[in-house]
Amino acid sequence: MRTYEIASIPGDGIGVDVTVEARKVLDRAASLTGFRLQWTEFDWSCERYAKTGSMMPVDGISVLSGFDGILLGAVGFPGVPDHISLWGLLIPVRRAFAQYVNLRPVRLFPGTSSVLRERSAEDLEMVIVRENSEGEYSAIGGRHNAGQPSEFVLQESVFTRVGVERIIRYAFELARTRDGRLCSATKSNGLIHSMPYWDEIFAEIAAEYPDVKSEQCHVDALAARIVQNPERLDVIVASNLFGDILSDLAAAVTGGLGMAPSGNINPPGEHPSMFEAVHGSAPDIAGQGIANPVAQVLAGAMMLEHLGETIAAQAVRNAVDAVLEAKQIATPDLGGTATTEELGTAITQAL
Amino acid sequence: MRTYEIASIPGDGIGVDVTVEARKVLDRAASLTGFRLQWTEFDWSCERYAKTGSMMPVDGISVLSGFDGILLGAVGFPGVPDHISLWGLLIPVRRAFAQYVNLRPVRLFPGTSSVLRERSAEDLEMVIVRENSEGEYSAIGGRHNAGQPSEFVLQESVFTRVGVERIIRYAFELARTRDGRLCSATKSNGLIHSMPYWDEIFAEIAAEYPDVKSEQCHVDALAARIVQNPERLDVIVASNLFGDILSDLAAAVTGGLGMAPSGNINPPGEHPSMFEAVHGSAPDIAGQGIANPVAQVLAGAMMLEHLGETIAAQAVRNAVDAVLEAKQIATPDLGGTATTEELGTAITQAL
Ligand SMILES: CC(C)[C@H](C(=O)O)[C@@H](O)C(=O)O
Ligand SMILES: CC(C)[C@H](C(=O)O)[C@@H](O)C(=O)O
Repeated sequence: MRTYEIASIPGDGIGVDVTVEARKVLDRAASLTGFRLQWTEFDWSCERYAKTGSMMPVDGISVLSGFDGILLGAVGFPGVPDHISLWGLLIPVRRAFAQYVNLRPVRLFPGTSSVLRERSAEDLEMVIVRENSEGEYSAIGGRHNAGQPSEFVLQESVFTRVGVERIIRYAFELARTRDGRLCSATKSNGLIHSMPYWDEIFAEIAAEYPDVKSEQCHVDALAARIVQNPERLDVIVASNLFGDILSDLAAAVTGGLGMAPSGNINPPGEHPSMFEAVHGSAPDIAGQGIANPVAQVLAGAMMLEHLGETIAAQAVRNAVDAVLEAKQIATPDLGGTATTEELGTAITQAL
Repeated sequence: MRTYEIASIPGDGIGVDVTVEARKVLDRAASLTGFRLQWTEFDWSCERYAKTGSMMPVDGISVLSGFDGILLGAVGFPGVPDHISLWGLLIPVRRAFAQYVNLRPVRLFPGTSSVLRERSAEDLEMVIVRENSEGEYSAIGGRHNAGQPSEFVLQESVFTRVGVERIIRYAFELARTRDGRLCSATKSNGLIHSMPYWDEIFAEIAAEYPDVKSEQCHVDALAARIVQNPERLDVIVASNLFGDILSDLAAAVTGGLGMAPSGNINPPGEHPSMFEAVHGSAPDIAGQGIANPVAQVLAGAMMLEHLGETIAAQAVRNAVDAVLEAKQIATPDLGGTATTEELGTAITQAL
């Protein structure tokens, strides 16, 4: 039987709760479709950091490199500064494995309604292609004249030709397989070095894809469009920071963060890709069994898709839709009283 | 009679259309309340750039420095790159006059409804205090190895102690005069130099304002909150870029960009402050008489307020509310067929 080696890193907080359910659903989809997921679990987390002083072992990256895929819960815990929890695990993995695409599909699910007035599922279906390896998230910078009245901090953004070209090309290729429309987020009127460069490369690559209807839009105006005219959007390509903001916003106007999956993808397949819910570890509700597992289940479906198991991936998405549509088993964020486990089980059964 | 010297810079596109109406309304409010606005008009614009090669004369800043206030329409025209139109006028004025506060109140107006489901005027009333002089909008940066495969671009963000302290202190003072709640936009998990610094200063200043309920929220989550739980937000303080994105979004979920005013304020009053609609020059609808003048009229009301003419400012806001509530005279974006001039006249008469 085809077997995939999968690393599971539940992480902290509700990351643990939802990853258990996702594994349950994915295992069932695999056995129904005729393949096997061989899981290896890692306790890399803020808890590990508290005990050992690091989020993952020194050889963490090389340990992961042998896997076919990685399913990550969420990392973050009060008391552990984000720049430790994230820059000690999530961000190094994204970069070491050249997971330069952060793919974030959002849609309005059956049985749910948008916070936006009069918006149907057709209006609300888009995918954000977020640059995931460089840009505004840079470790370069620091403080000058500390403690003086003239104190200041510099934060560098870095945009490389290689980095910008590959993400924009990926987005054009994706747009071709969908509705053929691509919008690039820019802010060339304010950020006069980085964003005109992004726009220049976007224009160059657009010329190679005359069949794709491409446009660019300032990130502020684009945020407004997501709430005012979402129906005109299909694929959005954006820098690391802009993609982060726009995808949270797009998730919020569709199903909410409890339903939004994401893939950190290495397109050439030279390194493992990593899949995770967009939501964080939500320590305030962790361990209570009330977290919505749908985002993580759908992140798992993205992983199956990436592994080439398209039928199983589609089956998982259909099962999620069926359960949401029936509205019988729903976690509190969906207006119900079901537990994380009950919703996970319902999705498993719907398969 | 008290007389204020006001510089009017209609600029480009619909900036011209809406500024005419704003002046009409403001003059009427002044004469009813017993003061006078002495207008001087400047043709600084992309049109001027096309003719002379610069957006404003070399001594533009010193010319403006003698005025009590500046009313700006909008700048920008196809063919003139944004970094010329904006960095040749708007941004230098903001910086030369230390207009370090960009104040952006948003609210749901009577007679209008939000794009958000089931949201009333009480849910949707907030003000974004945007840092307006530094941060992500920096001219420092450039291209390295141009034309080589290793080509890259750096874009520096600059956060000074002086700059961060003064904007955060302004926001705390403002929160005190309102509902006593302040939320700071951060992204310390991704931008590990600039945003932890911003957070550190926020925490320092929060200690001086124990009566203000303060919190911080990552900008991605905050964008989501603006559409999911706007009722819990009152004053938001944000960096230049974050404030730009969040205020456009907040405007979009309330009245839309046709209704959102802003003030570029120099709080000590050592230099003139500048007031403008948040919207741009919208060249596609310029000169057709269909632009909504409300944002610019309300920008004018902010100017009156800043000049200390509180009664006149309130009268203008009330007149706008009355006309919107009556729904008789409305521009196309408001679902009507009135012209820019008709709506301006209606507001003038409602005074
Ligand atoms: C035009 C542009 C530079 C400007 C900005 O981002 O500051 C505009 O979007 C605004 O919000 O005033
Ligand atoms: C946790 C944080 C660093 C991360 C990001 O901004 O990349 C998260 O918000 C996400 O969207 O994956």
